Amino acid sequence: MSSDSAATKPKPASSQSGDQIPWKKRKAEIKEKRKQWKKAKLIKQLEKQKQREDAERAQQEESQSKKGRAYTVSVALPGSVLDNAQSPELRTYLAGQIARACVVFNVDEIVVFDEQGEDVKSVEGEFKGVGKRGHACIQLARILQYMECPQYLRKWFFPMHKDLQYAGLLNPLDSPHHMRMDEESDYREGRVLNKPPKQGKGSVVNCGMRKDVRIDKQLQPDLRVTVKLNKTQNQDSRLYKGVVVAPHVPRTEGGLYWGYTVRLASCLSTVFTESPFKEGYDLTVGTSERGSSVDQVTLSPFKHLLVVFGGLQGLEASLDADQNLDVSDPCILFDLYLNTCPSQGSRTIRTEEAILISMAALRPKITAAFSDISSS
Amino acid sequence: MSSDSAATKPKPASSQSGDQIPWKKRKAEIKEKRKQWKKAKLIKQLEKQKQREDAERAQQEESQSKKGRAYTVSVALPGSVLDNAQSPELRTYLAGQIARACVVFNVDEIVVFDEQGEDVKSVEGEFKGVGKRGHACIQLARILQYMECPQYLRKWFFPMHKDLQYAGLLNPLDSPHHMRMDEESDYREGRVLNKPPKQGKGSVVNCGMRKDVRIDKQLQPDLRVTVKLNKTQNQDSRLYKGVVVAPHVPRTEGGLYWGYTVRLASCLSTVFTESPFKEGYDLTVGTSERGSSVDQVTLSPFKHLLVVFGGLQGLEASLDADQNLDVSDPCILFDLYLNTCPSQGSRTIRTEEAILISMAALRPKITAAFSDISSS
Ligand SMILES: C[S@@+](CC[C@H](N)C(=O)[O-])C[C@H]1O[C@@H](n2cnc3c(N)ncnc32)[C@H](O)[C@@H]1O
Ligand SMILES: C[S@@+](CC[C@H](N)C(=O)[O-])C[C@H]1O[C@@H](n2cnc3c(N)ncnc32)[C@H](O)[C@@H]1O
Repeated sequence: MSSDSAATKPKPASSQSGDQIPWKKRKAEIKEKRKQWKKAKLIKQLEKQKQREDAERAQQEESQSKKGRAYTVSVALPGSVLDNAQSPELRTYLAGQIARACVVFNVDEIVVFDEQGEDVKSVEGEFKGVGKRGHACIQLARILQYMECPQYLRKWFFPMHKDLQYAGLLNPLDSPHHMRMDEESDYREGRVLNKPPKQGKGSVVNCGMRKDVRIDKQLQPDLRVTVKLNKTQNQDSRLYKGVVVAPHVPRTEGGLYWGYTVRLASCLSTVFTESPFKEGYDLTVGTSERGSSVDQVTLSPFKHLLVVFGGLQGLEASLDADQNLDVSDPCILFDLYLNTCPSQGSRTIRTEEAILISMAALRPKITAAFSDISSS
Repeated sequence: MSSDSAATKPKPASSQSGDQIPWKKRKAEIKEKRKQWKKAKLIKQLEKQKQREDAERAQQEESQSKKGRAYTVSVALPGSVLDNAQSPELRTYLAGQIARACVVFNVDEIVVFDEQGEDVKSVEGEFKGVGKRGHACIQLARILQYMECPQYLRKWFFPMHKDLQYAGLLNPLDSPHHMRMDEESDYREGRVLNKPPKQGKGSVVNCGMRKDVRIDKQLQPDLRVTVKLNKTQNQDSRLYKGVVVAPHVPRTEGGLYWGYTVRLASCLSTVFTESPFKEGYDLTVGTSERGSSVDQVTLSPFKHLLVVFGGLQGLEASLDADQNLDVSDPCILFDLYLNTCPSQGSRTIRTEEAILISMAALRPKITAAFSDISSS
């Protein structure tokens, strides 16, 4: 019964008749009316409450789906930028500037490509045979990896190396996955310990906390893993409990920035062709003072964005050196070829500056691409 | 006579009468008609040409008025940022990063303020008495001035100094007023030479060209001056000819970026109160991760914009140290208090990074403020 029909219920016609007023009946009627009003009111309240709950649930679901970030952002630059530095200390510092610029803008992958077109694909081993040429790529990649690694894991994954000689000068990345010991977090990076696994139990992982973490799987010792810690922990237990997740999970489910991966590319073309994403990059941006103004650009939603920077001589030089690419104008290579700093007051912008400037210019465009209300 | 009335002139009614056609009259009429058509056509052409000329003139005037830039942009930061550097070399390098960041974004004034509230106003002399505290401001100011000075004038205005010991590590600003010897330009920075001035003739100025410049005035030797070179020069003359102009003229009339001035402020409040502009700053922006998002902001046209950055501890710390300011929340001090990097991936952004990021975020907003069609 709807509240409306109760409220407009017609009064009994008999009340104005000449007969004596039937008080008992009248009282009963009024009582019944009140009852129905109350009932209607309650129904109304319940309806409102349900509406409120529905709205809240929808909002929550929306914010939860918003919490995760599905897209990725990659940055590519030639390792040769290091060769512009005037001392080994400044060479290291420059690598640090690049790492920080990428972290500030939540970059998920840094691709270091060889402008000279030499083939250098691995960053493992000692590289003693590699000459000066091409070494900049390896050193840049190594420093970037070193910086990305949480401090408590570095001594395991980065033994002393000449390339890291001045690592003490590097400004820390201070990214969310660089946790302090007592910091609480849903996720942590860790290293599988070399403890003989017990029957039916998972490996133990050092996640840089006061206690180690027992995970759900038995894994090879010394592996670097991403661990999702259980919501509730037994405080008396000798170990925390958690499960191993894919490294993208803190980003895709938790919406957290979780550092970057580093990839070496032997030339500019393999930046595109050797993408770690099955579908490749679906939005590619080249940067140059000769590009079109970033101010007129709007971005559509993408899955995997790639932003490419040139070295001292710009992307034209990188292109010239690439034997796989038969184009001379780099703008053909990219979906967008952008000047991210129109009216620049210096004749040249250095690559490490261009990363901060370009990502700052693209940031609101990326945000707008993924929000319904486009930002002005 | 309008072209329309000529074209619609009624045909003679007699042509369809039964009488013999009066050919002579008819021919004369046609001739007259042709004449009038021609005349009308000519008038039309003339009108169009005039319109075209008017449009061109308007466009030219507009582009000429657009050529000059009337507004200024100032950046303020605490000298203490230098104290975060880990070596004397990196201290110098950091100062260079700040200078370059400002030049890339056409900043006209850099204000170095003392976060400790000590009174240091001059950058002249040797400062041997100044202790470590406060010295960062002086060193930063000195390096900024050194870098701004065109190379060919440095040996005159910057004698050897301990603060400039590692100046060789600095990346050049490469701004338009740092001209190479044979570069052509309407304006040049120069130094008045110590040559006895001849009766009725102006001083001679070294502007870093193959010939010196005879200016229109007699000025004190060793003064740094801005010279506007005459459009036509006698190639056979031993000297070029030019006139001395105010340092703002290359910007306000030529639309050129002409470097920055450097000002020391004894505390945060004098950044505002000791503005070199009579009217002070009419738009002040504070920067902080706790500010409101830059994405939602639009700027109105201004005369003198001031953008203020904090040091290691942020603007709150600078405010605390200032005895003239009795507010605790810095947002009260500024017209706008902005987070220029929402969703930053690092817990802290360093001041030298924040300058590039913030100016990159403000650049399109400044452009939009001064153009009719606001950029999206
Ligand atoms: C030193 S600059 C290269 C300058 C080179 N002479 C040229 O003309 O391209 C290094 C890199 O910074 C980036 N860059 C510099 N200025 C830029 C601008 N205004 N817009 C976008 N990217 C820029 C580009 O990626 C460029 O390859
Ligand atoms: C190292 S940060 C200061 C950090 C300090 N802990 C704070 O909370 O303000 C140095 C300066 O960089 C600038 N800055 C840092 N992050 C910023 C952001 N997201 N938006 C705008 N300015 C920022 C501010 O001027 C700040 O004072």
